[in-house]
Amino acid sequence: MLLTGLEFVGLVAFAASGALAAVRARLDVFGVVVVGLTTALGGGVIRDVLLGIHPPTTLRNWLYLAVCAGTALLVFVFHPQVARLRRGVLLADALGLGVFATAGTTIALNAGATVYAACLIGMTTGIGGGAVRDLLLREIPLVLRKEIYAVAALAGSVLVAVGHTVRLPEGPVTVVAAAVVVTVRMLALWRRWNAPVARGPD
Amino acid sequence: MLLTGLEFVGLVAFAASGALAAVRARLDVFGVVVVGLTTALGGGVIRDVLLGIHPPTTLRNWLYLAVCAGTALLVFVFHPQVARLRRGVLLADALGLGVFATAGTTIALNAGATVYAACLIGMTTGIGGGAVRDLLLREIPLVLRKEIYAVAALAGSVLVAVGHTVRLPEGPVTVVAAAVVVTVRMLALWRRWNAPVARGPD
Amino acid sequence: MLLTGLEFVGLVAFAASGALAAVRARLDVFGVVVVGLTTALGGGVIRDVLLGIHPPTTLRNWLYLAVCAGTALLVFVFHPQVARLRRGVLLADALGLGVFATAGTTIALNAGATVYAACLIGMTTGIGGGAVRDLLLREIPLVLRKEIYAVAALAGSVLVAVGHTVRLPEGPVTVVAAAVVVTVRMLALWRRWNAPVARGPD
Repeated sequence: MLLTGLEFVGLVAFAASGALAAVRARLDVFGVVVVGLTTALGGGVIRDVLLGIHPPTTLRNWLYLAVCAGTALLVFVFHPQVARLRRGVLLADALGLGVFATAGTTIALNAGATVYAACLIGMTTGIGGGAVRDLLLREIPLVLRKEIYAVAALAGSVLVAVGHTVRLPEGPVTVVAAAVVVTVRMLALWRRWNAPVARGPD
Repeated sequence: MLLTGLEFVGLVAFAASGALAAVRARLDVFGVVVVGLTTALGGGVIRDVLLGIHPPTTLRNWLYLAVCAGTALLVFVFHPQVARLRRGVLLADALGLGVFATAGTTIALNAGATVYAACLIGMTTGIGGGAVRDLLLREIPLVLRKEIYAVAALAGSVLVAVGHTVRLPEGPVTVVAAAVVVTVRMLALWRRWNAPVARGPD
Repeated sequence: MLLTGLEFVGLVAFAASGALAAVRARLDVFGVVVVGLTTALGGGVIRDVLLGIHPPTTLRNWLYLAVCAGTALLVFVFHPQVARLRRGVLLADALGLGVFATAGTTIALNAGATVYAACLIGMTTGIGGGAVRDLLLREIPLVLRKEIYAVAALAGSVLVAVGHTVRLPEGPVTVVAAAVVVTVRMLALWRRWNAPVARGPD
């Protein structure tokens, strides 16, 4: 129940981030909705394809689609106000990253994946939607460019996997792990943690 | 039989559209064939991956490959003439969109997908090949930019799903639904229906 | 045993090629590792998704990940020296192409794919990682632009499939086929074999 609530927060956050990027790329209203849907549902579809869950869960429940499409439409109409809420969007994106990475790990473990595979698949669930969004809009994906993005997702996945291994209760562990992802990600943004870049090709 | 014939029209149309785009991007003959094949077969491969049909149907029948590669080679040789037939190409692309979206929906329903999932998977089958083509050639996918493209495909998918639910015969329903997709798409092109773009980010 | 050794050569080669391309695109150390991993593991993940092997083999063995991440980190630190070894990198890339295309074909045949599907899936395994690398870095994929790349991979796949059909022993056939891929690819590079480009759109 708690997890389902968090999941919808993640869907709304990712749908809004995709729609906002599409508005900035001057797409029309259909393009904005398609990019919003792809960003929000993409990570889950990749997760289910890797786990062999057919057809993907997110394509089976119309409520997912309705929430994401509604969010994208709202962003289309109110995008100047949304863009002003830049910090809110970044926080929501971090929340989505945390929720999808940790919930993805739990789903992979329950589907019988090894601890190691579950961590990789969980991380991929978190970063997948944003990567698809950036590919569609011809950007180099954020996850390749920005401070502590994949690493934050991986940290959350590992926490869930450790909790699963020592048989802690699933719900609280996921919430704590998602909170860790959000905290690490927001700290990285706030303190402008940057990973080193190689010396110029010479 | 009728459906198989229509399917080959769709394959030829999509292979030609991919090959023509690749010629325009100055690719060599191998690149033209690879993009032609990817455009024609991509939607079906995505459909089968989502449905868990392994290995994908289009990778099992050499005739599909031969038809698509032959079409791409013909476009490579005769591309000035093909480019002149711009209306023909657009009509063929619309035909491919209609055939793949509606046939994809039928295949998903027969594979046991729910009505709702079948509509999404059918639409994805129709628009998938073109999206892959545009990604390979570093374009923002047409489906994000153009009038009434995904919506036309979705309309066809919904018609097939409704026909399936009220137990109408599969063949005629698919043909009618594909015709609706083609008509909507050609009307959108002809009348330059455009969806609204958001006011400039200000 | 021999095959496993060859496979690690392929992983190292592809991880290095991905990491080097990412260094050139000015990504930070995480981006370099992510692109290195994606290039090295991408072909195998695509292969397993097409064959319905869940979760993908390369996500189940931590040694694969460790070898690829270590290679990418070494490239990040020593990239000026690596870039100087341009011929070495091209040879390694050709080796990776040969190993992945031929091993992918064998794995597909053992998973019950038809000879025809196994050839296509093997070729895709060889060229998949590099295509994903180029998409992530916003390049038109090398396989679409360069002399005799997909064709070399396909030749190796066909050799393995023929060997399988006439029941030759798997190991030696794979080694010979991989050697053929490397030879064809290096000859194409050395002699600058180029496929024809279509006359300019006029």
